[in-house]
Amino acid sequence: MSTLLLNTDALTQQLPALADALRARGAMMCAAESCTGGLIAALCTSVAGSSDWFDRGFVTYSNEAKTQMLGVPAALIDAHGAVSEAVALAMAQGALLHSRAMVSVAVTGIAGPGGAVPGKPVGTVWLALGWREAVDVENAVEAGAAQGDATIHNTIHTTASLLNLDGDRTAVRSATVQCAIGRLLALLIDGPTGQSGSSSGALGAPNR
Amino acid sequence: MSTLLLNTDALTQQLPALADALRARGAMMCAAESCTGGLIAALCTSVAGSSDWFDRGFVTYSNEAKTQMLGVPAALIDAHGAVSEAVALAMAQGALLHSRAMVSVAVTGIAGPGGAVPGKPVGTVWLALGWREAVDVENAVEAGAAQGDATIHNTIHTTASLLNLDGDRTAVRSATVQCAIGRLLALLIDGPTGQSGSSSGALGAPNR
Repeated sequence: MSTLLLNTDALTQQLPALADALRARGAMMCAAESCTGGLIAALCTSVAGSSDWFDRGFVTYSNEAKTQMLGVPAALIDAHGAVSEAVALAMAQGALLHSRAMVSVAVTGIAGPGGAVPGKPVGTVWLALGWREAVDVENAVEAGAAQGDATIHNTIHTTASLLNLDGDRTAVRSATVQCAIGRLLALLIDGPTGQSGSSSGALGAPNR
Repeated sequence: MSTLLLNTDALTQQLPALADALRARGAMMCAAESCTGGLIAALCTSVAGSSDWFDRGFVTYSNEAKTQMLGVPAALIDAHGAVSEAVALAMAQGALLHSRAMVSVAVTGIAGPGGAVPGKPVGTVWLALGWREAVDVENAVEAGAAQGDATIHNTIHTTASLLNLDGDRTAVRSATVQCAIGRLLALLIDGPTGQSGSSSGALGAPNR
């Protein structure tokens, strides 16, 4: 083990930008991590004052942890495998349902050297984002209180993408962290562009 | 930001030893982290094959996360502060109650540069360990089934110690990680020595 995270210089610019974007929206983020094992959370909390915008992290390394901490159905993991679009989406959704964050990032992948299966080589990573619909928070809470949890749950959106990364365990984990921060930042700045069925535009202007 | 974790060389020897000690006992560990924000989990999972012995991590950065993810009573946090012996102990206990791990490590501290309060300067860190009593697992489960959860809960022990660390945010976080790994390893190898009311001796011979 020489280093935990490569390319920290490249992240030096993105991390303050992420902090600024979250602060400007009065929003907090959370992370649900499998293959990165806490590295996204560790990086975010390396920034002084990150308690303003980083709520919590779920290091769901085992499948049981994904189910127990995030509510990912065990049947979903059995059907698709832990490294799958369906599980990544469920992790991003579960992270929001189990936190007060407005945006979530979730990653599940094969960092290697072991773990590869046919069709899923080392470097296969699913990265998902989750976000709450930019609605009036007070009205949403009132509606939720009147009608049960469903109203609040329905305001959550998720999207996932597949990464095919090169290199050893450290390289795959580092590249995953970099993509996670980059995509999260793009979601906040540019909105959920390129997502079928979702409106585009910058996400969540300050809602208070 | 130059690096996430200092002294990785010093950890190079301890980490495989921790992995070996857990594997020899057929045990898994988990981490509950506040000031280190996922760094302990990220370090442990940097080791290939760590899914054999690392179950999950709780990055409970906010006080709400400590309560919701680990069951730390909000009243306890109000009474003692998040950086306190009582909260560290409750985090270590909660991590075991919310996982299938046999040992837990929990940290809560002030990494700086902000956050210092009178009597708790930057570098004040409480580190707690939790472990399940080395009893016959099948009998314990049967007793638990017959008498309710209390029997299983009673098999959990915790201990905490105060660290007073020097340096900046990265240095405090890095030293905390190093202490956490070292104390966990000592607990597994030497047993809970020096703890009032606890028996000494190596912890948990393979229980299956």
